[in-house]
Amino acid sequence: MLRVPADRKVNVGILGATGTVGQRFIALLADHPFFVVHALGASERSAGKPYRKAVNWKQTDPIPTAIRDLLVHPCSPQFFLDCAVVFSGLDADVAGDIEGAFRAADLAVFSNAKSYRRDPHVPLIVPLVNTSHLSVIPQQRSLHSPPLEKGFIVTNANCSTTGAVVPLAALERAFGPIESCMITTLQAISGAGYPGVPSLDIFDNVVPHISGEEEKMEWETLKILGGIAPDGAFDMHAAAPLRVSAACTRVPVLEGHTETVALRFARRPPPGPQQVRDALRAYVPEACELGCPSAPEHAVYVHEEDDRPQPRLDRNFQRGAGVSVGRVRECGVLDIKFVVLVNNVNIGAATSSIINAEVAIAKGIVQL
Amino acid sequence: MLRVPADRKVNVGILGATGTVGQRFIALLADHPFFVVHALGASERSAGKPYRKAVNWKQTDPIPTAIRDLLVHPCSPQFFLDCAVVFSGLDADVAGDIEGAFRAADLAVFSNAKSYRRDPHVPLIVPLVNTSHLSVIPQQRSLHSPPLEKGFIVTNANCSTTGAVVPLAALERAFGPIESCMITTLQAISGAGYPGVPSLDIFDNVVPHISGEEEKMEWETLKILGGIAPDGAFDMHAAAPLRVSAACTRVPVLEGHTETVALRFARRPPPGPQQVRDALRAYVPEACELGCPSAPEHAVYVHEEDDRPQPRLDRNFQRGAGVSVGRVRECGVLDIKFVVLVNNVNIGAATSSIINAEVAIAKGIVQL
Amino acid sequence: MLRVPADRKVNVGILGATGTVGQRFIALLADHPFFVVHALGASERSAGKPYRKAVNWKQTDPIPTAIRDLLVHPCSPQFFLDCAVVFSGLDADVAGDIEGAFRAADLAVFSNAKSYRRDPHVPLIVPLVNTSHLSVIPQQRSLHSPPLEKGFIVTNANCSTTGAVVPLAALERAFGPIESCMITTLQAISGAGYPGVPSLDIFDNVVPHISGEEEKMEWETLKILGGIAPDGAFDMHAAAPLRVSAACTRVPVLEGHTETVALRFARRPPPGPQQVRDALRAYVPEACELGCPSAPEHAVYVHEEDDRPQPRLDRNFQRGAGVSVGRVRECGVLDIKFVVLVNNVNIGAATSSIINAEVAIAKGIVQL
Amino acid sequence: MLRVPADRKVNVGILGATGTVGQRFIALLADHPFFVVHALGASERSAGKPYRKAVNWKQTDPIPTAIRDLLVHPCSPQFFLDCAVVFSGLDADVAGDIEGAFRAADLAVFSNAKSYRRDPHVPLIVPLVNTSHLSVIPQQRSLHSPPLEKGFIVTNANCSTTGAVVPLAALERAFGPIESCMITTLQAISGAGYPGVPSLDIFDNVVPHISGEEEKMEWETLKILGGIAPDGAFDMHAAAPLRVSAACTRVPVLEGHTETVALRFARRPPPGPQQVRDALRAYVPEACELGCPSAPEHAVYVHEEDDRPQPRLDRNFQRGAGVSVGRVRECGVLDIKFVVLVNNVNIGAATSSIINAEVAIAKGIVQL
Repeated sequence: MLRVPADRKVNVGILGATGTVGQRFIALLADHPFFVVHALGASERSAGKPYRKAVNWKQTDPIPTAIRDLLVHPCSPQFFLDCAVVFSGLDADVAGDIEGAFRAADLAVFSNAKSYRRDPHVPLIVPLVNTSHLSVIPQQRSLHSPPLEKGFIVTNANCSTTGAVVPLAALERAFGPIESCMITTLQAISGAGYPGVPSLDIFDNVVPHISGEEEKMEWETLKILGGIAPDGAFDMHAAAPLRVSAACTRVPVLEGHTETVALRFARRPPPGPQQVRDALRAYVPEACELGCPSAPEHAVYVHEEDDRPQPRLDRNFQRGAGVSVGRVRECGVLDIKFVVLVNNVNIGAATSSIINAEVAIAKGIVQL
Repeated sequence: MLRVPADRKVNVGILGATGTVGQRFIALLADHPFFVVHALGASERSAGKPYRKAVNWKQTDPIPTAIRDLLVHPCSPQFFLDCAVVFSGLDADVAGDIEGAFRAADLAVFSNAKSYRRDPHVPLIVPLVNTSHLSVIPQQRSLHSPPLEKGFIVTNANCSTTGAVVPLAALERAFGPIESCMITTLQAISGAGYPGVPSLDIFDNVVPHISGEEEKMEWETLKILGGIAPDGAFDMHAAAPLRVSAACTRVPVLEGHTETVALRFARRPPPGPQQVRDALRAYVPEACELGCPSAPEHAVYVHEEDDRPQPRLDRNFQRGAGVSVGRVRECGVLDIKFVVLVNNVNIGAATSSIINAEVAIAKGIVQL
Repeated sequence: MLRVPADRKVNVGILGATGTVGQRFIALLADHPFFVVHALGASERSAGKPYRKAVNWKQTDPIPTAIRDLLVHPCSPQFFLDCAVVFSGLDADVAGDIEGAFRAADLAVFSNAKSYRRDPHVPLIVPLVNTSHLSVIPQQRSLHSPPLEKGFIVTNANCSTTGAVVPLAALERAFGPIESCMITTLQAISGAGYPGVPSLDIFDNVVPHISGEEEKMEWETLKILGGIAPDGAFDMHAAAPLRVSAACTRVPVLEGHTETVALRFARRPPPGPQQVRDALRAYVPEACELGCPSAPEHAVYVHEEDDRPQPRLDRNFQRGAGVSVGRVRECGVLDIKFVVLVNNVNIGAATSSIINAEVAIAKGIVQL
Repeated sequence: MLRVPADRKVNVGILGATGTVGQRFIALLADHPFFVVHALGASERSAGKPYRKAVNWKQTDPIPTAIRDLLVHPCSPQFFLDCAVVFSGLDADVAGDIEGAFRAADLAVFSNAKSYRRDPHVPLIVPLVNTSHLSVIPQQRSLHSPPLEKGFIVTNANCSTTGAVVPLAALERAFGPIESCMITTLQAISGAGYPGVPSLDIFDNVVPHISGEEEKMEWETLKILGGIAPDGAFDMHAAAPLRVSAACTRVPVLEGHTETVALRFARRPPPGPQQVRDALRAYVPEACELGCPSAPEHAVYVHEEDDRPQPRLDRNFQRGAGVSVGRVRECGVLDIKFVVLVNNVNIGAATSSIINAEVAIAKGIVQL
């Protein structure tokens, strides 16, 4: 079980606290067993106000009582020095500088922004997949002079990438390398933040393009599913080249990205649909083994019904912390195809950062 | 130009006239240059009523004046003997028997139903692709005893199949056989007819399964893109095996199916994206060459903008008679990928039957 | 506090258990402090199956574990004799006969159906308004021969009526009779059950008519807000005639009815907006005083923000057991106008029946 | 018939040509019998570009060929001196200054913006109601020194006001003054322009507030339905005080505002529903009498079906130039209630300006 005593509380800070992901951090942490929201950071415009006045709250549950009157700070490290963990839901245009400054102030940053995902010293961690990549943190700290004692940055992946890599990781563990993978996404509007997608653009419509999304999916998948070379570099799945091709679309759905996935295994003959279903169900990632409180019971929940998963019915299952898979069947072109559903705001964003922090605590990387 | 004199009118009948596809037939034929709606057929419940009382009209334009008070008949051939062409928008559960009876009564039936699509003597014709398959009609007539003089059945394809095969046909004409093709569809609710999809099932949701749809797409594509063997049989693309893999989903869109398509050519090296765009733009099918009045100016309209085609903005272009393609780009797994938009109720249904009939007239297969 | 010992469990049955309202009963009762779902009734088609196979489950939470394998019975009293309370989510076309048979079998029925709402001996109870009407139960029992000992029928109101009468009751308590009331409803699709509204009818649309709904609102309001005459008859607000005019529309929203309400008080001068807000906030109905576990903390929650309540943001507040009011302001024609939001499936349906049963237990009308 | 010779063309300019209303002006004028789009004005950012590059075109029909490459100008009068009519679809924040400058340059401006609606010398004209108010133009011109010869500003009303006042005007003409009127609106998202309403705010939701909208409806109605005092001032319906109370909501509909309306006549006894229906059908405003080409055949189309009008089915009837009314029935509080549908972008915006200009030409107020 997780190495946090039952009565121990861990102070956390939230950057970008008034934004879409920031709000979800606050909602998810409201009844966390040991994380306590201690400091909130947002733009200068919000700083100095109580949270309830600074935020345009869009969650279905009301603002947690303990947070309503918490003062919002600017995103400067000085206000977060008492936080053992800092979660960042910052927009990409400011995340780079601010997260860098927080790390330099020896703070542990778990970021949902894309700014550091391609940094060769920053792990890109989907908590149900590659928490082993936390092993590069000492090296990341040593790059600073003087070396950092506690500070680092860990990023989590793009929401669509997260949905796909969890079953892919399960299948690679069971059947060896995947050779190629084709994905079409049907992404929810909440993935674009607020105000995000104008209603006139997406009502009664599909937008068959999301800027940069396909490139992210094709690249991030390699970093996440790859290993760590002896010199500490991410090997980008080098041992067995993996080709990923994504087509990303936006659909009129509030929350929950649906993805159709087809893949070809290196191994011949490939496993059949029932073997794939069994392997997905048998998959237990490290975050679950460690007993992380925000980790789902089923990393991958496999549906038997033909018409599942569906975003509206399945996105809140396990508080959106797992991934749902359905319609596992043979593919006439590659080997196997199936449908994935991922809650883009939970495991696709805030929940990933939270579980990553729980694992980092369990492994002693975050020092309490 | 089409072999119908400017002042010649052609009487047509419509079966299933009160249904979704039947209504679209009526709306589309309202200002047709030579087809005149002469007889309407529907279920016993509607028979005997003027059309405006029998129908639950759901089109945005009002019922054409000439049709409002037309009497609805039962679907018996006796009421349609003056019709040179009979369009069928019947539901699959009754289409088989009724359409068979109409053919036996020596009537020319152009059907949107699936009942005869797999019949080895009935052509399955997407009018922007394989009107050459009308050549099997004499053989179909000869199977009856005594042989039919005028009667036959021609079917058109499933709406999703239609969207995919038009660009595929254009590319095979330009670059030779396609070896494999992967398609994910995002299908509109109007594809399910009325009452069709309950709103509680599809609001804020995606349903990742449409019964029988993937099988139809994978099979129909072979019949349509294939040739005719010397013995008159459909060869199902036998010369160069073509593998098709489809994943079909329903999305909250009223009209217009979006499809992500990826394909691999037999020819190596394959054509690049610009060659593909050029070939799609250069494609002129026989229906266009013949000057069919319901055929589109562009069989395939190729968008340059990154975020097109979109169903709401592009589904009515060319009265929904063409197919829109966008985002032609390289695929990291197969060769080329792109996005297709097809108006499922127009070229994906009623417009296909209408153009098929126009071509059959132009070729003298329908006898006026 | 409620007169049910902490460790006492009360067996309940659910009629129409596979329908929309039946599913909501099951979801809401999953963690009830003393009600235990003991028997499920549905149509012959479902009877004999375990619940998970009989139902087409549409709730966001999975079927409660204790219910998944519970056997579904036909709706015959013999299977429900151990149930102290029977909740009915039956469709109106069968509810009359079945609920009558259950009452005749001396069972206590709390019905969401409309069949008995206009019965002069059956109370129509909105639990946040007129639980005092339970006083007619002895009379209802006495009409049978021999008189019933435990059996009776209590109905709850139409969902839209429920939303309006709660604030009206609060205002009549504070300021005396309301003279006239005008209501426009914007009703969610879930109010029509499943399959209910076809998506083609309501996507990108408003339907300005719901059959029978306006009549129900105008009539039920009088029965609910009225008193009991000395002879035990419902007086239909006779002392001070109340005129209600409703205009009901269906809008593309999943859950939560929005209503614009304007009203004129008998008292001159009428109270102003701030007095109205204060009175709504001060309103504590009997169900709350009795400590019913399913009653909300705030019978009426009053929003200060200009743009609230909104169905998506506010329908789940207090588990949908209260009513939200916003935009209380002067009306240029009547006295006061405001906006009401009611969760049509919770306090507008299943939650009402449940609280009614809790009150009936608290008052000793249901005999345990 | 309209005093424009068949072969005479009238040059028009469009201000705010790239915005939502500007695009609709261009789409509507594409096949106008005598208006020719001659000059386009937009913000500095767009000026100097061909229209197709400056605009983010959101209409379902493609950009008219003649407009695609028309150069966009800044909104300075110098570029519009050849235009006999200038239509303004400018945003309110810039409309005041720009429209004033155009009038000062002796140009005839027909504005959809709100800036001058409350100006005591500018008529607020709903073309199906009060074109008689054009009589104040000479006075408006005379206020300038030296007096203007051709220039003036005419505004049209808010989209929701427009929908309500057309039937109100018809009923006042038939039955004399209306005493009070209550309106609830269900407004489409296109009323907010682009980007306008964020999808996260309105998906699966109703927003019960639109800033300033209720005030506009309550005030504009008085100016439009009122007369002109002997001194040339608008009398605001002074002879018979009219009280209007509006409740405005936003619903998830793309185009077409639905309004529930209830009203009380001064005359006792009031007319019944059938008389009201007859009066609405009999109403022929001046714009129709004059034969304005953009005026609808039916100023008010009255539906008999219980469930009409509906925005999706009825908003494009008569090219959105008329108003639809349905469900005319008695009101239990006031006299009569009914449902109105108005196309907010056509007769509720661009079409109003266009018909106003047609009337002004017919009356010789615009000098060609």
